[in-house]
Amino acid sequence: MLDIKNFKTLSRYTDSKILMLVIDGLGGLPHRQTAKTELECANIPNLDKLTQESTTGIATPIQPGITPGSGPGHMSLFGYNLFQYIVGLGVREAICFGIKLSNKDIAIRGNFCTIDNQSVITDRRAGRIPDNDAKKLIKSLSQIKIDGIDITIKHLENHRFVLILNGSDLNPDITPTDPLLNNLHINQASANSPQSRKTATIINKFTQLSLDILKNETLANAIILRGFSQKPNIPKISNAYHINPIGISLYPAYRGIAAMLGMKVTNQGKNFSDLIEIVKNNFNDFDFFYLHYKDTDSAGEDGDFDKKVIYLEKLDTFIPELKTIGFDVFTITGDHSTPSVLSSHSWHPVPILINSDIPTSDKSTHFTETECRTGDIGQIHATDIMPITLAHANKLIKFEPTIPI
Amino acid sequence: MLDIKNFKTLSRYTDSKILMLVIDGLGGLPHRQTAKTELECANIPNLDKLTQESTTGIATPIQPGITPGSGPGHMSLFGYNLFQYIVGLGVREAICFGIKLSNKDIAIRGNFCTIDNQSVITDRRAGRIPDNDAKKLIKSLSQIKIDGIDITIKHLENHRFVLILNGSDLNPDITPTDPLLNNLHINQASANSPQSRKTATIINKFTQLSLDILKNETLANAIILRGFSQKPNIPKISNAYHINPIGISLYPAYRGIAAMLGMKVTNQGKNFSDLIEIVKNNFNDFDFFYLHYKDTDSAGEDGDFDKKVIYLEKLDTFIPELKTIGFDVFTITGDHSTPSVLSSHSWHPVPILINSDIPTSDKSTHFTETECRTGDIGQIHATDIMPITLAHANKLIKFEPTIPI
Repeated sequence: MLDIKNFKTLSRYTDSKILMLVIDGLGGLPHRQTAKTELECANIPNLDKLTQESTTGIATPIQPGITPGSGPGHMSLFGYNLFQYIVGLGVREAICFGIKLSNKDIAIRGNFCTIDNQSVITDRRAGRIPDNDAKKLIKSLSQIKIDGIDITIKHLENHRFVLILNGSDLNPDITPTDPLLNNLHINQASANSPQSRKTATIINKFTQLSLDILKNETLANAIILRGFSQKPNIPKISNAYHINPIGISLYPAYRGIAAMLGMKVTNQGKNFSDLIEIVKNNFNDFDFFYLHYKDTDSAGEDGDFDKKVIYLEKLDTFIPELKTIGFDVFTITGDHSTPSVLSSHSWHPVPILINSDIPTSDKSTHFTETECRTGDIGQIHATDIMPITLAHANKLIKFEPTIPI
Repeated sequence: MLDIKNFKTLSRYTDSKILMLVIDGLGGLPHRQTAKTELECANIPNLDKLTQESTTGIATPIQPGITPGSGPGHMSLFGYNLFQYIVGLGVREAICFGIKLSNKDIAIRGNFCTIDNQSVITDRRAGRIPDNDAKKLIKSLSQIKIDGIDITIKHLENHRFVLILNGSDLNPDITPTDPLLNNLHINQASANSPQSRKTATIINKFTQLSLDILKNETLANAIILRGFSQKPNIPKISNAYHINPIGISLYPAYRGIAAMLGMKVTNQGKNFSDLIEIVKNNFNDFDFFYLHYKDTDSAGEDGDFDKKVIYLEKLDTFIPELKTIGFDVFTITGDHSTPSVLSSHSWHPVPILINSDIPTSDKSTHFTETECRTGDIGQIHATDIMPITLAHANKLIKFEPTIPI
């Protein structure tokens, strides 16, 4: 199968412009009373009209039955094979909380925990310590100094924090101090390679200094660390697809992912109208716009069917404006399904619509799961959405391999 | 692609219970006169009603155009990538004839054959020698003793038998004595590694002793051996999916496969009603029930369209009873198609139905190949059936890889 790295030679710059609108948690399931999905209940005349002028389909984000997190869902959308391009836990936590990382940073996921007087872990999550208490402990730990190393600690939520180390000759290939179960001792970090010995030593020193600082605390008297990682060395979509991309979202997590994948990200707005202004203001300077709409996912996660319907209807009112900006290709899809009846992300495939100047035999008339399933694009994998979108924008050359792919 | 071994970290124990009914050779093709498949001709009101309350789809067992044997068909159903998890011919023959193997046994597929006075093979199958004659020859060969080796010979059918060796330092990595074509000499077994030299020597000795015993026989005067193998080291579905599985079939071949994959297997009944009793009696002790219905395949193999229809109708009468046992997820599918018009297994995709509390937009009303094809599950690979089934039972966590899969 072609991988994102193969598109370097398959794609080309053209002056056509693409808008990819990602409706977070787009796909749904039927309400138990009405037997209609959120999309089927919503009054979305503009999306329906666009559907009638578009080619449609349905995409499986990861693999049938597998429910993606937001990060994997988005990476799959942008064409990354998730079994090949892995983002370490420390980096993922940092990105999702909007923490910027430099290339040399080692990002580490930390837990506050409790240990008994035999140094055995009694609670790996310190009773999910309240944010305010955790922040005070973070402040104490921030005093720790280690020669030659810049140390940053950022609180995430409850017992969770990110530790970031920057210095020369650091390498994340070490074992975790977190044993992942209660009733075990905190592990010593060990180097998995000669290159990571220094990092292991620093982590063990940091852990010891933390224990000294926290020893009289009652809510959490120790820390455990895991997910040692660096910004992954993955292809940028700008290079891979010969595009000049910008990512536009109200939320740091999605801007973080966009930036990691090589998109320019820009100042956040306050609402979706602001984001559309950003699209318009940057229209001349970019040729690929990832535009993120979050509220549908939040309503689905809350199990609020009616609210998800309302957010779909609200989004629908923006479609004419987006349509008139002048994009050559307008792709609309989601990163995963978030059916309100499940109150969570799910494994169900997600509708896609690709609007362009290229004619289609597609008979879909409503932007729903069931109609898109019968559309001309068919049932595809999410990693196929970028290639199909690029193809509609005339950005892919004919495939005639002359060397091994 | 996620492999069964990846599900160890993706699945979790829950108290939900799954029934997977495997209708052997389920899929069919249209009758040449009526243009209707067996499923389309059958009066199966209970399966049709279940279809209306379920999500449906169609699954390709191996790869388009590839017809599976029963073993591979079942392994695919339970999530095994058949290009990764191989069961050697000797082991497969033993398992399919209900022969129990220990971990150290070397299982070998044997043929009775005929050779001329130049020791050239004239018929690799000895004219498909009748069972009774073959059994007499097996009895003669059972006299063979080799120091330090336990030798067991079991007749399968016609010219086919299994030879099982048990002893210290045995290793199946040797070349076959069966040249696979007539008009060639019986080969000497050769070791492919130093560890298998002893086994090659034993095989050559056994072959020579057999020739001595059989030299005056008229129906078969020699043996040829291949498929040297041991019980494969493959993940158990119990560990891989965190389930406590039981396999229930009237036939030793299927119980053998179930046991090999880590399922408990239990005393056979005499008919399908007995199997349902076994399901009920074990309901509290297991959370995954593989229930096998064989007659549809046998009728298809016989090319008896009407009989396959009758066996589908007979199965249909058991559905209400199965439905009321109280499973959270009830999956119905087949291991492969056995169209009566072909009188054999075939490569055609197989209908699937998953019944659970999760709502669906699925519009299928009849349990047929054509209707299931338009269902919400779509067209999937058979190895996706377990993940989708587990997802419906809430046994999979969200996919957020942080280390290489």
